[in-house]
Amino acid sequence: MGDKTTVYARPLARLIEQLQRLPGVGPKTAQRLALHILKRPEAEVEALAQALIEAKKQVGLCSVCFHLSAEPVCEICRNPNRDNTTLCVIADSRDLIALEKTREFKGKYHVLGGVISPIEGIGPEQLTIQALVRRVSQHKPQEVILAISPSVEGETTTLYVGQLLKPFTKVTRIAFGLPVGGDLEYADEVTLARALEGRRELDY
Amino acid sequence: MGDKTTVYARPLARLIEQLQRLPGVGPKTAQRLALHILKRPEAEVEALAQALIEAKKQVGLCSVCFHLSAEPVCEICRNPNRDNTTLCVIADSRDLIALEKTREFKGKYHVLGGVISPIEGIGPEQLTIQALVRRVSQHKPQEVILAISPSVEGETTTLYVGQLLKPFTKVTRIAFGLPVGGDLEYADEVTLARALEGRRELDY
Repeated sequence: MGDKTTVYARPLARLIEQLQRLPGVGPKTAQRLALHILKRPEAEVEALAQALIEAKKQVGLCSVCFHLSAEPVCEICRNPNRDNTTLCVIADSRDLIALEKTREFKGKYHVLGGVISPIEGIGPEQLTIQALVRRVSQHKPQEVILAISPSVEGETTTLYVGQLLKPFTKVTRIAFGLPVGGDLEYADEVTLARALEGRRELDY
Repeated sequence: MGDKTTVYARPLARLIEQLQRLPGVGPKTAQRLALHILKRPEAEVEALAQALIEAKKQVGLCSVCFHLSAEPVCEICRNPNRDNTTLCVIADSRDLIALEKTREFKGKYHVLGGVISPIEGIGPEQLTIQALVRRVSQHKPQEVILAISPSVEGETTTLYVGQLLKPFTKVTRIAFGLPVGGDLEYADEVTLARALEGRRELDY
């Protein structure tokens, strides 16, 4: 009686099922979203569906910095007004976006694609560390800023990348303005800006 | 520098914009969802996009009870095992889904499509009340249960519909097992089941 095929029309059940695959979306939220979607004009629903497909099809990784990009080289890397002498290394595109919002950093970025995590089977070779070392050794920026969240894995990654880059340039890390154990992505912009300002040279 | 066109690749910015139109999805959630989607396999993203379009295209309203349905007449109305002598009137398809989950009700439904709300300009003629009166006067169910959330507008609607239907049949309402001012959709299944059990005949 109360089984799902009876309660929900099948295409609706399928939509709810699909929405539930999204992070943080449980059954109730999926149902609420689906019923909302059914009430919207068809053009609006198609715009969302198309945005999904186009984003997935068109957005890849920048071949220079590995940020998300719809072009082979991203807009930040192509921007002639950005300072080539400072390179900021982050774990994830989300961290790049968070830093950009502070408007404090005018240099370029390098996205590692994660942090070293033996538990999750992520070693240096799964990240873009080799490309980073090549980039730094070839273009010799005056400074590389390591802006990696201070978790255990983040600290390991900072240490590892720092030691690889020190032969080529000055390596700094952002200050612990953010709470240790916190996630860079969720820090507010002022805290992040302060963390950038207060960066210090690696002393180990 | 930190403007959106630089930070997000354009198709990504468009996706975030589209996701933000969903209820309860703010800028941070939209970004998190979008970046998650970019990491998923293309087939999975296409499945979601297709589910959106198909649900919107295929799901309409049942011509008998006005529940969401992919067929002209919904599965509940077509189900020969459902009791034709009891009719439950609800404001919204969400309420029908919530009641179905209790597995307490074996009768049929009628979805009003909202509640009478002069402030929002919703009068009886915007709802399926006329169709309900026709349905009840023709098919004469033994009982009509009014299961409308006890808000001010819900009470008005219960009163209005109850008076229209009383000439034709016994009219009851679900018990106030749910907290007054609360929303039927969000009540737990036990509370809803109790509210169904404790229903009483309209006494005004």
